[in-house]
Amino acid sequence: MIDCGEGTQIQLRKYKFRFGKLNHIFISHIHGDHIFGLFGLLSSFQLLGRTNDLNIYAPGELKEIIDFYKRNFAYDLNFRIIIHPLGYKRKKLIFRDEWLEVHSIPLKHRIPTCGFLFREIQQDLNIKKEAVDKYKPDLESIVKIKKGKDLKISHDMVIPNCELTYAPWKVRSYAYISDTAFHPSIIKSIESPDLLFHEATFSGEDEILASETSHSTSFQAAEIAKLSGAKKLIIGHFSSRYKHIEFLVDEARKIFPETYPANDGDIFLVNRTRMEFS
Amino acid sequence: MIDCGEGTQIQLRKYKFRFGKLNHIFISHIHGDHIFGLFGLLSSFQLLGRTNDLNIYAPGELKEIIDFYKRNFAYDLNFRIIIHPLGYKRKKLIFRDEWLEVHSIPLKHRIPTCGFLFREIQQDLNIKKEAVDKYKPDLESIVKIKKGKDLKISHDMVIPNCELTYAPWKVRSYAYISDTAFHPSIIKSIESPDLLFHEATFSGEDEILASETSHSTSFQAAEIAKLSGAKKLIIGHFSSRYKHIEFLVDEARKIFPETYPANDGDIFLVNRTRMEFS
Repeated sequence: MIDCGEGTQIQLRKYKFRFGKLNHIFISHIHGDHIFGLFGLLSSFQLLGRTNDLNIYAPGELKEIIDFYKRNFAYDLNFRIIIHPLGYKRKKLIFRDEWLEVHSIPLKHRIPTCGFLFREIQQDLNIKKEAVDKYKPDLESIVKIKKGKDLKISHDMVIPNCELTYAPWKVRSYAYISDTAFHPSIIKSIESPDLLFHEATFSGEDEILASETSHSTSFQAAEIAKLSGAKKLIIGHFSSRYKHIEFLVDEARKIFPETYPANDGDIFLVNRTRMEFS
Repeated sequence: MIDCGEGTQIQLRKYKFRFGKLNHIFISHIHGDHIFGLFGLLSSFQLLGRTNDLNIYAPGELKEIIDFYKRNFAYDLNFRIIIHPLGYKRKKLIFRDEWLEVHSIPLKHRIPTCGFLFREIQQDLNIKKEAVDKYKPDLESIVKIKKGKDLKISHDMVIPNCELTYAPWKVRSYAYISDTAFHPSIIKSIESPDLLFHEATFSGEDEILASETSHSTSFQAAEIAKLSGAKKLIIGHFSSRYKHIEFLVDEARKIFPETYPANDGDIFLVNRTRMEFS
């Protein structure tokens, strides 16, 4: 989960999300609208009998806040909260397992803030069943083929890997950029994400206000999407001054047509596709 | 406002409540589900430009929590938060203006907790227009009539007050009792309220659990309503273990037929009626 504003646990219940599945929370910065849902969520974890560790990747200052919470509301918590403090100097790998890696990306806000890049790990290749039936490779060879090696079947005959395996899945990536002023140096860091969430607190007309409060306009969000080579842009974190947000989406689409607004409960699927070789 | 659980400001917006009208918050006790909405609400007040004092009637420990909030999230708050600490020895008058008085009523929970009794102030009597036209009382006499005095129009003729004024409005009252174990000593304190909210966390079948956690069953809530002479009972604060709460209402109605469940957004009107004299 990324950020945890007030009412998060209520929304999780509404959308029938299983609380027990949540083991990693990424907090961009310590402003109320990004963390005021933590206390209630932690209390619900306790009430539901959680014992699994909970990992929180967040500015180090969160520790004091969690300690305060524990002291006042949950001195007998039955699970560990492990806080992994973020850094702000450069992009940094903060999580990696077999399937996914997560990098923190320093942003430009009024207080220390990071965005996050979620990227799949390139998995081993899938061998074609016909190739196994035909060449009957031994276990050692199978492991090598899956890693991309060709198969030597005699001293003068080699089957190229591309005949043995399916084209690999492309790794998918999602970048979450909020809250931040227009900050083009992140373009390199987010590496053409399949999906980019970028805050668009203000309309282009309110660019001065955006600059003063270290937020972005919808134009600026679209600019980042375009320059980074993102495939799709979601904008959100809209100022409550705008009663309707369609025009913010329209603004962004002038620069980056594949722009969509973030509404409560929206699901954006990123389909798996196979690499194409020329 | 009474208590402020997570998501309160979201609900206030949903029901189009004007934030600026909220000047007094009554907090029964320092458990998360009764106060985790405070931080977000205070931040929204600040964002909306509030400068009016905010009065919070709450256990004294809230001060440390508000101080922590200010230090970490709102060091530049533009309005004062005045905390009025509750007492736990006896029923106590904690607020009074021209129209309303509020008493705190100590309850029986795992931590210091108070319920609240809201009662209108008996207003001056309304003089009948016909009486003014007929007897033409002077200003001084009018003030006296409004206070219930008879009108002396000559040395041997007195017009009784009941001929000069309408029957007075009955004062209305609302008692809020949550969270608490079954605690019959409050019956005297709540003084036959027109409307009683009483927690009913558990079903009668789970009476042991209610006792262990210092909560009440729906039977117990109904018992308090009946013995106190309440006119209408609202039950709520239901345990999430019950998927449907109709049977809790049915239980309570066996003892106190005028029982209704508290649902989000419900409005319970208490109509003004005039006193009847025999």
